[in-house]
Amino acid sequence: MSLLVVGSVAFDAVETPFGKRDRMLGGSATHFSLSASFFAEVRIVGVVGSDFGAENIALLQRHGVDTTDLECIADGKTFFWRGRYDYDLNTAHTLETQLNVFADFKPKLSAESRRARLVFLGNIQPELQREVRAQVSDARFVALDTMNLWIETARPALRRAIEEVDAVIINDAEARQLAEEPNLIRAARRILSWGPRAAVIKRGEYGAALFTRESYFAIPAYPLESVFDPTGAGDTFAGGFMGYLASCEKIDEAAMRRAMIFGSVMASFNVEEFGTERVQRLTHAEINERFREFKRFTHFEEIPFERIARLAMPDESDRSPVAAKEPTALN
Amino acid sequence: MSLLVVGSVAFDAVETPFGKRDRMLGGSATHFSLSASFFAEVRIVGVVGSDFGAENIALLQRHGVDTTDLECIADGKTFFWRGRYDYDLNTAHTLETQLNVFADFKPKLSAESRRARLVFLGNIQPELQREVRAQVSDARFVALDTMNLWIETARPALRRAIEEVDAVIINDAEARQLAEEPNLIRAARRILSWGPRAAVIKRGEYGAALFTRESYFAIPAYPLESVFDPTGAGDTFAGGFMGYLASCEKIDEAAMRRAMIFGSVMASFNVEEFGTERVQRLTHAEINERFREFKRFTHFEEIPFERIARLAMPDESDRSPVAAKEPTALN
Repeated sequence: MSLLVVGSVAFDAVETPFGKRDRMLGGSATHFSLSASFFAEVRIVGVVGSDFGAENIALLQRHGVDTTDLECIADGKTFFWRGRYDYDLNTAHTLETQLNVFADFKPKLSAESRRARLVFLGNIQPELQREVRAQVSDARFVALDTMNLWIETARPALRRAIEEVDAVIINDAEARQLAEEPNLIRAARRILSWGPRAAVIKRGEYGAALFTRESYFAIPAYPLESVFDPTGAGDTFAGGFMGYLASCEKIDEAAMRRAMIFGSVMASFNVEEFGTERVQRLTHAEINERFREFKRFTHFEEIPFERIARLAMPDESDRSPVAAKEPTALN
Repeated sequence: MSLLVVGSVAFDAVETPFGKRDRMLGGSATHFSLSASFFAEVRIVGVVGSDFGAENIALLQRHGVDTTDLECIADGKTFFWRGRYDYDLNTAHTLETQLNVFADFKPKLSAESRRARLVFLGNIQPELQREVRAQVSDARFVALDTMNLWIETARPALRRAIEEVDAVIINDAEARQLAEEPNLIRAARRILSWGPRAAVIKRGEYGAALFTRESYFAIPAYPLESVFDPTGAGDTFAGGFMGYLASCEKIDEAAMRRAMIFGSVMASFNVEEFGTERVQRLTHAEINERFREFKRFTHFEEIPFERIARLAMPDESDRSPVAAKEPTALN
C-alpha cells in the first residue's frame, strides 16, 4: 500500500563523543522515508531551499522515494540544525536552529499523494498535520509524531490532531508530558482515550512499547555495543514501523507487533553511524537477520503445565510444611 | 535443590508520595527469602537484635524459610534504614542508617547450610561474601549482589568475589560503574570476562537483561499502573530468579530465561505495596498468571518465509524501480 510522509528535510551538523559532521542530510521526513523505502513505496512531502543539491534528490530516488511533492524554494535555504550529544547519547543539545524555508512550510499534496493509504505526519505544527490529514480521506492508517514544543504551545490543536489519527508514535517523555501523567501505562491509556487505536512509545536504549485498547506489547532495544549518533533514530523507527505496515495486507495486532520489531531494527542501524549513512547502504538481508535476532533474544519457553500444576498447591494458606509449627525461639 | 541466602535482615521506615510506614520488615535477605520461598526451600543466614519480634520469625517460617542460621544478638538492635522516594520512584533518598548488629555481622553457616546447592550472596562486604562462598563447596550455582559502596571502597575484594561466583545480579548503574564502561552491553561482557557464566542486569521499570558468553536475553518490565514502594524490588527479583532455578533439574539457558521472567514477576508484585506486604499474601496462581501475561505481551510471530523471500531482493544495489532514472529536477 502507498505510504506518504510529511515532515522536515534538513541539513544537520552533529557532534558526538565519537566524531562530527558539519553538514549531512537530515530531517524527520528524510530519515522516515529512507527507512520506510525498504518495505514500501514512499512519497515525501516537504520543502527545501536551492542549496539542496541534486545528489540528495538522487539519493532519495535511488531508494524508490517519490520526490514529486518535495517543494524547492528557489531563493530559500534548507532547514539547518546543529546539535551536540555528550556521553549520555539520550539527550541532544541544540546549538543552532535555522528554520529557513521550513518556517513557512505549507504542505502541498499532489493528487497521487492524496490517495495514499498510509500516512505519517512527522513532527510539524499540529494545525498543518490536521490540514494534511483532511486531504488524505482514503487513508486507512494515519500516524503522527509531535514534540514538547507543540505540547507546550499548541495543546488544543494537537489534541484535535490526535483525535483524527489512528496512531501516535512518540517517545516516553513526550507521552508523559502529553498525557500529564508520570506513569507511562496510564499516560498511554489516556492518549488512547482521545481516539487513536494505537500508541507507540519509543524508549531509546530501553526499547519500545505498543498500546492498544485491548493489548500491550513491549520489546527491549537491539543490543548495541556502540551508539555513534542517535540523530533521526525516532523517525527511522517510525519509517520501519509504517513501512512494514504498508507492506501488510491487514493492519492488525500481529502486523503491528512485527512492525515494532522492524522499527527497532531500522533504528538500531541508524544509530550505528552518522545521520543516514548506515541506512543508505543497508540491505534487506541485514534487516531480516536482525529481525530474527530479535526473536532469539526475546524468546522464552512457557513453563510446562506440570510445573504450573506443581507450583499451584491446593491450599495457599497452608502450603508450607512448617506452617503449622509454632515460631521457634531464636538461637 | 536447597537454596541459601546471606544478607541483611532489617526494619525499614519508608516514605513515598503514596504513604508511609514507620517500621516494617525489610532487608535484602528478607525480601529474597520470602520471594524465593514460592519456588524452593530457603535457608536464611543473617543477624537481628532482640527487638526482632517472634512474629517476624513466624512470618518467615510460615513461608517455609528455615531460620536456624538467623542469629540473634541479645543486647543488640536490628539494622534500621529510613528512606524516602519522591515521584521518581527509581531513586531512594537515604535519611538514616543504623547498622546496629549488622555492623559486626559474621555469617555463621550450620552444617546443613554449608550443603546448599544454590547460594545467593546478598549485598554485604565482598570479603564476607568470599568467606561464605568458601564454605559452600557443594554449591552448583552461586550468585552475588553488590552496591556502589563496595565498588568504590572494596573493588579488589569485590573483583575476587566475582571471580568465584557463577552469576552477578546487579542493576544497570552498578554494572556500568563496576565495569567502568558506560555501554551496558560492553559492561556486561567485561564482567563475564572475570569469570561468572551469567550477568543479570536489573533495569527497574525498563525490565531486565541476561548476559552469558554465548547469548543475550532481554525483557521489558511488567506494566504497572502504580508503583507504591520499590524498596526490596531488586532482592525480590533475585529471589524469584534463584528460587525458580532451585526448582529446576538443570540450570541451563532455557531455565535462566524463565527465571528472569519469574524474577520480574515477583518484583512486580513487591512494588505494588509497602515492603513485603504484597508478597506475604501472594499465591502461586497469581505468580503463574503473571508469568503467562509476560508471554502474551512479549510474543510476536516470526515473519513468514515468503515475506522474507519477497523482501530479500536479489540485487540490493538495484532494487528500486526508479533507481536507473536520472535525478529529476525539483519542481
